[in-house]
Amino acid sequence: MSDVKNNPIGIFDSGIGGLTVVKRMFQFLPNENTVYFGDTARVPYGSKSNSTVIEYSLQDGKFLIDKNVKIIVVACNTASSVALDELSDKFNVPIIGMIEPGAKLALSKTVSGRIGVIGTNATVNNKAYSKELKKLNPKVEVFEKSCPLFVPLAEEGWLNHKATLLIAEEYLHELKEHNIDTLILGCTHYPILAEIIHKVMGPEIHLIDSGTAASIIVKDYLIENDLLSDENKNPVHNFYVSDVPSKFKEVAELFLGTEVENLTKIDLEELIH
Amino acid sequence: MSDVKNNPIGIFDSGIGGLTVVKRMFQFLPNENTVYFGDTARVPYGSKSNSTVIEYSLQDGKFLIDKNVKIIVVACNTASSVALDELSDKFNVPIIGMIEPGAKLALSKTVSGRIGVIGTNATVNNKAYSKELKKLNPKVEVFEKSCPLFVPLAEEGWLNHKATLLIAEEYLHELKEHNIDTLILGCTHYPILAEIIHKVMGPEIHLIDSGTAASIIVKDYLIENDLLSDENKNPVHNFYVSDVPSKFKEVAELFLGTEVENLTKIDLEELIH
Repeated sequence: MSDVKNNPIGIFDSGIGGLTVVKRMFQFLPNENTVYFGDTARVPYGSKSNSTVIEYSLQDGKFLIDKNVKIIVVACNTASSVALDELSDKFNVPIIGMIEPGAKLALSKTVSGRIGVIGTNATVNNKAYSKELKKLNPKVEVFEKSCPLFVPLAEEGWLNHKATLLIAEEYLHELKEHNIDTLILGCTHYPILAEIIHKVMGPEIHLIDSGTAASIIVKDYLIENDLLSDENKNPVHNFYVSDVPSKFKEVAELFLGTEVENLTKIDLEELIH
Repeated sequence: MSDVKNNPIGIFDSGIGGLTVVKRMFQFLPNENTVYFGDTARVPYGSKSNSTVIEYSLQDGKFLIDKNVKIIVVACNTASSVALDELSDKFNVPIIGMIEPGAKLALSKTVSGRIGVIGTNATVNNKAYSKELKKLNPKVEVFEKSCPLFVPLAEEGWLNHKATLLIAEEYLHELKEHNIDTLILGCTHYPILAEIIHKVMGPEIHLIDSGTAASIIVKDYLIENDLLSDENKNPVHNFYVSDVPSKFKEVAELFLGTEVENLTKIDLEELIH
């Protein structure tokens, strides 16, 4: 098992948002090698049909499997809500999505049982978090709200802009009126705006970051299965994308919180083969 | 030629933005039948490679050709800047893009020769408008600025929100300092925000709407070639999309300025065959 231990953790997303999840992996699991794949050529997955999202997710997963990953983290809310079963059936490594870890962490934090969820239109429309929360605890009350401007605001890096505050107030006032005590950031872009969201929601709110939630689950799994890396050297982090859009480096480093080294663009043909 | 005359005008876009172009076609050419195709399942084209955009555009064009269109309007800035030659080579009808009509109309309006262009990151990065303007008149000075938040603001319908004003001020102050007298709205979503853009830029600015620019060119072409419809009945407008995303109807009607009737969702398989 010694070689499997030191295999990397694989993480994929439809684009760049999953880097906020990688950032948490680095904090919670600092000795682990990682491989990230961002399908930037085909972003976003949220507006695509379920069958297309499953097809793309299986290609993304296969890419990571070919890099010998020991576990796959699906750092994309859409793929998490649609393709987890297919990924688990196809690949012989554990598959960790965003929804269940986020829901579990939210349930561990809430006192009032009133939980808010914010996400893209696609995530909010398919009610993936509401279903998971209700499955785990039928007594909770869940309030969902889509916040489509948060993704471009995060990518613009307007973290303290007055417009961002106004937009956050507009989106969040309903949730405030519902007296939630816990708010799930149901989109991997949103942790970038956590400070302003906290400011609007008030100091008592528990913000649930999917990256933190998933990192806790991954760490527990690796410990329980004796799969933590035991290498005595700096871990290797490799980043792959299917396209390098404009401003990629700037946005990626904002999301990751550090420099993106070892970045490789792969051809879609390589992914689809 | 009598049947060709009464064939519809075909218009395609990567999504919903092209409906602002259709709106202008209705105004300038009220007796014409139209067919619109919005590739909402594969939106946006701006982040995709040129070869992918060409492939998708040829599929979109073929779909319209199968509907017997007499002319094709490419109501998408990305496809216009990448795929016009391939569309013209492949199909035996005139192909009208967004870039050349917009540039020509801007040149007819500017007095100072100082022209601004706003668009998505993709459009601004490939400098399609600058190249076209300089080709038509090497003496003009062109200033481009990407405004990524304008698309989601338009789709949210926040036309008079204070946040929209703040964002417009932030994006446009550079262009104001450059003393432009004409501003090309280089994205088919932006006419939705024309009022607030006008407010920020001042009453003297000429705003160039691609839909208006393209409609003028299409009308001229149809008149010169004796291809105006001579039917004595209400024209038929058909709308096709490859997906019906959430809030589609609401946003589509905001963009079109009227109800979207005769809407059909087609399968991507049908498009690709």
